Amino acid sequence: MAYGGYSYIDKNYRPKKTDFVTILWVKGESTFEMLSEALAAESSVGTWTKLATMNDFVWKKLRAHVFKTIKVSANSGYVYIAYPYDHFDSRNLLQILASIRGNIYGMKEIQELKILDWVMPEKFQKQFPGPKIGIKEIRKIIGTKSRPHVGTIVKPKVGLSAKEWADVAQKAFMGGLDMVKDDENLVNQTFCPWEERVIRTIEAADKAKDELGEGKIYVSNITDSIPKMIERIEFLDEHGWKQCMIDVYVMGIAGTEEILRELHKRKFLVHAHRAGHGAETRGPWGVGFNFWEKIYRLLGVSQLHTGTGVGKMEGSPLFIQKYGEIASKQKIKGFEPLFLNFKWAKNIKPMMPVASGGLHPGLVEGVTAIYGKDVTIMAGGGIHGHPKGTLYGAKAQRAAAEDVNKGIKLNKTQNIYLQEAIKKWGYVSGIEIKKRITSIKKLPIKKIAKGGLEALDKLN
Amino acid sequence: MAYGGYSYIDKNYRPKKTDFVTILWVKGESTFEMLSEALAAESSVGTWTKLATMNDFVWKKLRAHVFKTIKVSANSGYVYIAYPYDHFDSRNLLQILASIRGNIYGMKEIQELKILDWVMPEKFQKQFPGPKIGIKEIRKIIGTKSRPHVGTIVKPKVGLSAKEWADVAQKAFMGGLDMVKDDENLVNQTFCPWEERVIRTIEAADKAKDELGEGKIYVSNITDSIPKMIERIEFLDEHGWKQCMIDVYVMGIAGTEEILRELHKRKFLVHAHRAGHGAETRGPWGVGFNFWEKIYRLLGVSQLHTGTGVGKMEGSPLFIQKYGEIASKQKIKGFEPLFLNFKWAKNIKPMMPVASGGLHPGLVEGVTAIYGKDVTIMAGGGIHGHPKGTLYGAKAQRAAAEDVNKGIKLNKTQNIYLQEAIKKWGYVSGIEIKKRITSIKKLPIKKIAKGGLEALDKLN
Repeated sequence: MAYGGYSYIDKNYRPKKTDFVTILWVKGESTFEMLSEALAAESSVGTWTKLATMNDFVWKKLRAHVFKTIKVSANSGYVYIAYPYDHFDSRNLLQILASIRGNIYGMKEIQELKILDWVMPEKFQKQFPGPKIGIKEIRKIIGTKSRPHVGTIVKPKVGLSAKEWADVAQKAFMGGLDMVKDDENLVNQTFCPWEERVIRTIEAADKAKDELGEGKIYVSNITDSIPKMIERIEFLDEHGWKQCMIDVYVMGIAGTEEILRELHKRKFLVHAHRAGHGAETRGPWGVGFNFWEKIYRLLGVSQLHTGTGVGKMEGSPLFIQKYGEIASKQKIKGFEPLFLNFKWAKNIKPMMPVASGGLHPGLVEGVTAIYGKDVTIMAGGGIHGHPKGTLYGAKAQRAAAEDVNKGIKLNKTQNIYLQEAIKKWGYVSGIEIKKRITSIKKLPIKKIAKGGLEALDKLN
Repeated sequence: MAYGGYSYIDKNYRPKKTDFVTILWVKGESTFEMLSEALAAESSVGTWTKLATMNDFVWKKLRAHVFKTIKVSANSGYVYIAYPYDHFDSRNLLQILASIRGNIYGMKEIQELKILDWVMPEKFQKQFPGPKIGIKEIRKIIGTKSRPHVGTIVKPKVGLSAKEWADVAQKAFMGGLDMVKDDENLVNQTFCPWEERVIRTIEAADKAKDELGEGKIYVSNITDSIPKMIERIEFLDEHGWKQCMIDVYVMGIAGTEEILRELHKRKFLVHAHRAGHGAETRGPWGVGFNFWEKIYRLLGVSQLHTGTGVGKMEGSPLFIQKYGEIASKQKIKGFEPLFLNFKWAKNIKPMMPVASGGLHPGLVEGVTAIYGKDVTIMAGGGIHGHPKGTLYGAKAQRAAAEDVNKGIKLNKTQNIYLQEAIKKWGYVSGIEIKKRITSIKKLPIKKIAKGGLEALDKLN
């Protein structure tokens, strides 16, 4: 077996500590073996035809190795590829993306292609900052030890005036929410100018902090062209407010790295929204969300949306739990072929996972069953749609967080606003969620892997 | 039918000149009508539950309208959505992405979702620069009137030393190629330092220009973190070389816009590679490539990879022809539901489409049958894999471009090196390609649309 005159499959190869490793699902129009060859060739040193210009150094020192495969059918399966460190331009993340997540997606003979996970070596990680304001620092701002954080997105998404908007935020803070954020499609529209909204909302947060004696977080959405974002960061800093939100997936990696440099310099808490990621993290093409998540932690966001496992957004509890671990732990146990063993370098601090999308107070217990207590639980409609409105929706959500922290099951809560919320939207038991995760973990994953991506997706 | 208490379907609505319009393919777990509602709601002013905070202004002035649908089955079809201008933050491209290409991809009830095309209003386009060095200016640099441009990527992709690399480039230029470029995964590795490669290759280009009396293009890959890219742009400018390559999809939109600002200021020719785009432009999730292409022209790249229609990369001739038109024309005729009618604002100049991936001299006629003559045809293995090596591969490719320009069919060529290339790799007739496009265009597209994305994909 060979591609362009060379064979990249080498089952005796053991990945080195300094290698980059990827695991891919592939299905195509040629044999599984040939697809494996083509992926390794196109993402490293090869092409479709034999070259007069190929030489020994290139071949021996820089090529990729397919060191393991799991064949599912004659034309599909999982491919493990290792890349030598010197193949890459050291700290150049974009060049690495262009190699391992690049032209291979354009190959005609491929019908499905998904990078399920990847490992970057410690040597590489050490060059990056990681979160400067991580879980520990966020807890210090709010003043909590262990309870989950709760917050809201002001709704409707767009259309409220700055004053109306800040009034809703005020109620949310006063009701006991730790955090308020802009929605992803609100920045600086004519009906709600950004500066006015920010000033009014900072006032609301400060007032709530004074009255309640609790720290508050307001992350305004600064996402825009880079000069505009810098202007907004300066404005916030001048107003003594070192917190903001960026929408990392729509920005892309180069922009995210650039703006984080500015934000780290000024010691900002950086909330990361991920609008649009599903365009390449769902279905049989693209990457698993964990692929991007590792980059976002490496570059140093403080909080990252990682799904709910319950609510209106996709993602099974098991996947969401793994995303939670990748965000908040230093060492992650693999669950192959979906997740590889992974270790963060010591300098890359934990970031806070954020659950958001279709949540309401009755789901808080279920969310913490997935994530543990190091999580920020955001609700929009589930706060403002409360029968008594925003203030009481906030009280209900805060009560849910307090109850969960004390080990009280939410269907036994003494809080009347929480009781009302549960009456309207229902309740999901944490025990049920834990059982579901356990049952998925007990599945013979190797056997399921044999069913291909479709079978694995059913876990999702 | 309603979602979160409101209905967004309004078949009497006629999109305004200032509206943004998208067309989406959707398939899901609820009815097609409910999916249409949910997409419009989540991408504009709504959410999953009725809100106490919704008001008349928001509803009347800012909501999205589903103004047309093509139902394919009970739970799938095409949805046309119009968004009012004021919904958006004017020039903030990222906020628009977060709205129309944002959270909707995370909705649990959706099984497939693809934005097939979009229209941005003239009022919006006028705020952007478009290409500063476009087709006309590129032809002036090289000194051509009508013939297709030809170029090469030095191979193997990575591993040659700077000297070896520049020697290959030198042969390519001397053989008559107009352009040489770095491959996407070569930037500044230890075995081939960027500065040395650039200096040596500029020398090679200058020498070829002097000897042959023809302009030459060398686009080195500067893709990296933004400060590194700025350094490299300064370096090139100091060496009097106003040309470079950026890898736009791995960079992302914020980084691409930022670096183009710098490149426009210095009047650079900007070659845009698109490694990795297939992760979201293939399969049933994501966007059509035309979605991104319109942004890249808007922001102002000079040359953009848009596929081959032949060779190792995916994409049927019809799709590639449309991508070619979006790059090089001011007005594009729709082919619904795949492509909408579209008009560029006057200030947005044409950019040069680039065909690259598995090409060789025998395919040059086929490529121009798709694109016309305003195209740059790149070949890697198809040059360096020539039986006589790079210099003669280049001669063969240049001869193919000259023959095509004169209307000579390549299987009748008098050029012996081209004859050798065709003997090795074969020949695809332009007439055959044109017939294929015509036959696809004659298909009853409305009937095919009824077969859903899968049927449309078969055109691809």
